Amino acid sequence: MKTSLFLAIGLLLPGIALAGEGNAANDMVWLATASALVFFMQAGFALLETGMTRSKNALNVVMKNYMDVCFGSLIFWALGYGIMFGFNTSGWFGTDGFFLNSVDGSTFGFMLFQMMFAATAATIASGAMAERTSYNAYLIGALLITGLIYPVFGSWVWNAGGWLAKMGFIDFAGSTVVHSVGAWCALAGVLVVGPRLGRFDKSGKPREIRGHNLTLVALGGFILWFGWFGFNGGSTVGASVQIGLINLNTQLAASAGAVGSMLIALLARRPILLTETVNGSLAGLVGITAGCATMLPGYAIFTGLVAGVIASLGAAMLLRMRIDDVVGAIPVHGFAGVWGTLAAGIFFVDDPFNSMRIMVQVLGVVSAFMWAFGAALVAYLVIAMTMGLRASAIHEQRGLDLSEHAEIGYPEFPVETAYTAHRAIDLESRR
Amino acid sequence: MKTSLFLAIGLLLPGIALAGEGNAANDMVWLATASALVFFMQAGFALLETGMTRSKNALNVVMKNYMDVCFGSLIFWALGYGIMFGFNTSGWFGTDGFFLNSVDGSTFGFMLFQMMFAATAATIASGAMAERTSYNAYLIGALLITGLIYPVFGSWVWNAGGWLAKMGFIDFAGSTVVHSVGAWCALAGVLVVGPRLGRFDKSGKPREIRGHNLTLVALGGFILWFGWFGFNGGSTVGASVQIGLINLNTQLAASAGAVGSMLIALLARRPILLTETVNGSLAGLVGITAGCATMLPGYAIFTGLVAGVIASLGAAMLLRMRIDDVVGAIPVHGFAGVWGTLAAGIFFVDDPFNSMRIMVQVLGVVSAFMWAFGAALVAYLVIAMTMGLRASAIHEQRGLDLSEHAEIGYPEFPVETAYTAHRAIDLESRR
Amino acid sequence: MKTSLFLAIGLLLPGIALAGEGNAANDMVWLATASALVFFMQAGFALLETGMTRSKNALNVVMKNYMDVCFGSLIFWALGYGIMFGFNTSGWFGTDGFFLNSVDGSTFGFMLFQMMFAATAATIASGAMAERTSYNAYLIGALLITGLIYPVFGSWVWNAGGWLAKMGFIDFAGSTVVHSVGAWCALAGVLVVGPRLGRFDKSGKPREIRGHNLTLVALGGFILWFGWFGFNGGSTVGASVQIGLINLNTQLAASAGAVGSMLIALLARRPILLTETVNGSLAGLVGITAGCATMLPGYAIFTGLVAGVIASLGAAMLLRMRIDDVVGAIPVHGFAGVWGTLAAGIFFVDDPFNSMRIMVQVLGVVSAFMWAFGAALVAYLVIAMTMGLRASAIHEQRGLDLSEHAEIGYPEFPVETAYTAHRAIDLESRR
Repeated sequence: MKTSLFLAIGLLLPGIALAGEGNAANDMVWLATASALVFFMQAGFALLETGMTRSKNALNVVMKNYMDVCFGSLIFWALGYGIMFGFNTSGWFGTDGFFLNSVDGSTFGFMLFQMMFAATAATIASGAMAERTSYNAYLIGALLITGLIYPVFGSWVWNAGGWLAKMGFIDFAGSTVVHSVGAWCALAGVLVVGPRLGRFDKSGKPREIRGHNLTLVALGGFILWFGWFGFNGGSTVGASVQIGLINLNTQLAASAGAVGSMLIALLARRPILLTETVNGSLAGLVGITAGCATMLPGYAIFTGLVAGVIASLGAAMLLRMRIDDVVGAIPVHGFAGVWGTLAAGIFFVDDPFNSMRIMVQVLGVVSAFMWAFGAALVAYLVIAMTMGLRASAIHEQRGLDLSEHAEIGYPEFPVETAYTAHRAIDLESRR
Repeated sequence: MKTSLFLAIGLLLPGIALAGEGNAANDMVWLATASALVFFMQAGFALLETGMTRSKNALNVVMKNYMDVCFGSLIFWALGYGIMFGFNTSGWFGTDGFFLNSVDGSTFGFMLFQMMFAATAATIASGAMAERTSYNAYLIGALLITGLIYPVFGSWVWNAGGWLAKMGFIDFAGSTVVHSVGAWCALAGVLVVGPRLGRFDKSGKPREIRGHNLTLVALGGFILWFGWFGFNGGSTVGASVQIGLINLNTQLAASAGAVGSMLIALLARRPILLTETVNGSLAGLVGITAGCATMLPGYAIFTGLVAGVIASLGAAMLLRMRIDDVVGAIPVHGFAGVWGTLAAGIFFVDDPFNSMRIMVQVLGVVSAFMWAFGAALVAYLVIAMTMGLRASAIHEQRGLDLSEHAEIGYPEFPVETAYTAHRAIDLESRR
Repeated sequence: MKTSLFLAIGLLLPGIALAGEGNAANDMVWLATASALVFFMQAGFALLETGMTRSKNALNVVMKNYMDVCFGSLIFWALGYGIMFGFNTSGWFGTDGFFLNSVDGSTFGFMLFQMMFAATAATIASGAMAERTSYNAYLIGALLITGLIYPVFGSWVWNAGGWLAKMGFIDFAGSTVVHSVGAWCALAGVLVVGPRLGRFDKSGKPREIRGHNLTLVALGGFILWFGWFGFNGGSTVGASVQIGLINLNTQLAASAGAVGSMLIALLARRPILLTETVNGSLAGLVGITAGCATMLPGYAIFTGLVAGVIASLGAAMLLRMRIDDVVGAIPVHGFAGVWGTLAAGIFFVDDPFNSMRIMVQVLGVVSAFMWAFGAALVAYLVIAMTMGLRASAIHEQRGLDLSEHAEIGYPEFPVETAYTAHRAIDLESRR
């Protein structure tokens, strides 16, 4: 199984020698380090998302992230890994490797790393759908993403037998495989669950709903960025000097992404928001994820910069379409992911601006959207029609922490909702 | 010294080749990474504990964790390391290696890793005894745990000359050596210091005292889980492909632990609390710590699931016994540690369900309780009778932040205690 | 380029074999891990600094840290790296390696690691100058530090051709190169921008201004400490058994630093503050940074202890001089950095107490102050006279979050400034 994966990467990145430069034990050191870093990204998501929501839903968001990892790890072990990395004759899904219990340490380590990726894909939806999605229904959705939607697409790209892999589709660490797939699932969920109460007024004009703790948003951003060095760098799945280029590109693109979102704010004569800046850097990270191993640093900066611009413009576009993505997950992980996947083709190091290669990238991006959005739409519609996807209006108003968990995040600190609304209006008028 | 430790591990884990697959420099890379991760667990403990306590004691709890590391590192260098890993003819304690100042880098690196473990053992008590224990008295206790109680037991198991080591007792990364020992010290401390004012009413019925920041509880849980990949994975003390199995087991057991605690809540028709879920995952982590290197993933899931169940039931049991463990440290680190140590024997990979092996595990578990609980009980009683262990009632009511440190955690945010009490009752009635 | 750096380190540390013990791929694993850890220190700085400031400036401080990394990374790639590590015939600055786009993975990895260091140097100023410095002006300053001031001094010490390198100046991981340089820039900035409104009364007596979230201060401290294992340990720039000594020294000195600041509080019969304790441990870390690879653990403890004492006394001294360093950056990074650099000479392992060596250390320390303070003073004065360095008084009073970013950190939680002032006075009277 592991061999087939290495083979797959070998096929995708002909110009680059990756793992196997060290021995198996040393490869495992890096894989284990990277796995831990990618795990920690879950804390980053949790903080970013909870910070951008109201305090009455603070725990609910965090709990969704926490349980994503728990359910996601178990289902990926049981089901997802086999679908994604099992023997794949059809090109569309793997057929063995389920409940993997007795293989070598290297394969276990590889599975752990992939498990962390699967959990990441699922958790992207939690932020977009925050503050009005029922806890149990959300978790069913997360199980479907981790156990089925994500690994099926993954098998097309990261399994040596996958049909996109065979066409030479380039997505080194998952701009499309992980981030766009997660974002298209989030888009489906957001469309099915609908916007939060009061998010748009009767004329469709958006009302600002401010997050309750922006310091945590920044901490979440830092943690995600930190973890991304494992996400991208670890995709070598072993010790390699190429990690130097990969992680330098990661750093530069993230930096440029923040600058990109800042430029948009400056051009629009808007204040430079922390939330927008953090999202800009995350868009830079998503953008470089596909091409980080096969792009020169100068192009990485350009890729990140454009990704930051796209995330800012994309967030505004969604608002105009009355789509309520609480944390900006869809522009950051979806739109920037599309751009990054194209950029990986356009700036491919050995052979840039090759239109055939770019067409393959377009094909991969489109097929990701069709599969992930389509499958998730069906899944969330079925959930909505059976158990119900959305919390009741009274629960939404009281906050999901109280109604779903009978706990509140900060029981000693009084919350002034009127004050908030007042303050938000005041801030709005300043722009 | 290092050789003797490797020998000890070799004795304990006959079927598994661990460190030494890489060279010394590469082993050190993993050991240094793992040491940093285990260090970071202190931040996890600090956040988890402070989040579960009231804001008037927020700093005091954090300061206890912070100084645990500081005092603990110094005393372990001076005293504890020699007791634990020094030449051990008696089988009961080491007799050299104190104030280690001039050895090779590998031994220094190994000592650093062990130092982090010692600090972890000590810090477990800080959460259980929070909100009413005097700062100075607590620190004396922590010094005794790190410098004496923990390393003596450690020498029985992780020193090649230790009597439990010679019997083949299995505790790969310390379900018993670190977690249960810490928990039994915590139990002794909690019994001597008594419950918080108002924790139980006159009839002995517990009153809910809610933590002031549950977002930080979740962040603490994420950080602990993240650090555990160094705690368990690093216990190879070097580069090894076995880290793959070890950390996969760690991930699966933690996930299953959260599910286990959730099942208990569902069966009892209680709401699914964040605090309980996080503790469930930590119990899964504690549970897998002993057997993570010698258990198949399927058994790891079972071990974690049961550990989560045990932590939830154990917390309820302590409450019925009117024992006030603020953060649930005793069920999570103690009860789940016992179960995990037994599970390491029961599901031992080369030879599962061997009753002789299981008896050795029982013996190790019992001797850990007798030594750690007994020694800590004496220590805390002596502290209580001399300098006093408990803060004065007036200090406890004002909060230890103000009375011990003349600082408060959130000086700009008004705290509404009456509001809290009111809200807590309200929540209680909803269950 | 990389060769010249290795050569430089080789010249500085004749008694110690560093990188090159592993192969290039394994060296990269450690370098990448360490780079990620040093990156994460930015989150530590952000939390420490925001926690020590008032909630009305919480975001502004965090944003400065966040953008430090973004701008700093890009300018260091474009300009700073070449100045610092380019071919250096004059001994005063490098002359190639700008916009590095096409070298080997090892060099890219080395540049990434150095980029993280540069960002650290710049971010030190953000805390000292917090709560009254204009956002745009601050960022210009940060660009000058990362792109010019820091790399010029760095080329004197860490470039094989540097004049201080040739004299045998010892600064393994940057007590002077990174921390003191950052602190002297901060001192220049603080002098030019002046103290916060109300920090000193008319007679010059300081008024306490309390940080809004001390839990975050502690978390910031933990994260910085955690990251320091990459900062110091990673300065081997590759796999090495010496990381064992380096990181053990790091741990012991940090611990002793906290104890040192605690001793000062005990001697002065002041309460033991969390802020002071955390700063004590950071001073210990700064102190051991120069000599961590060339000092025995016993001396590391002494170095750290003295550094903690110096940080506490230095903070009091600055206050008496009416210098308003919000977070104590100057004593922690500057004064403790000076001491640590001297200690690296005094306790040099192969040849301690050699007065010639100590004189070279003094020369390095003095030249760092002259260059960094001088250059930064000019820079901040020019900024102040052109675009203006200080926010307007009305913005300062409203808080920079609202005036610079049109966001507030905690919109749902009412802030009681009068209450705060009242409480602060109350606390003051308790001492």
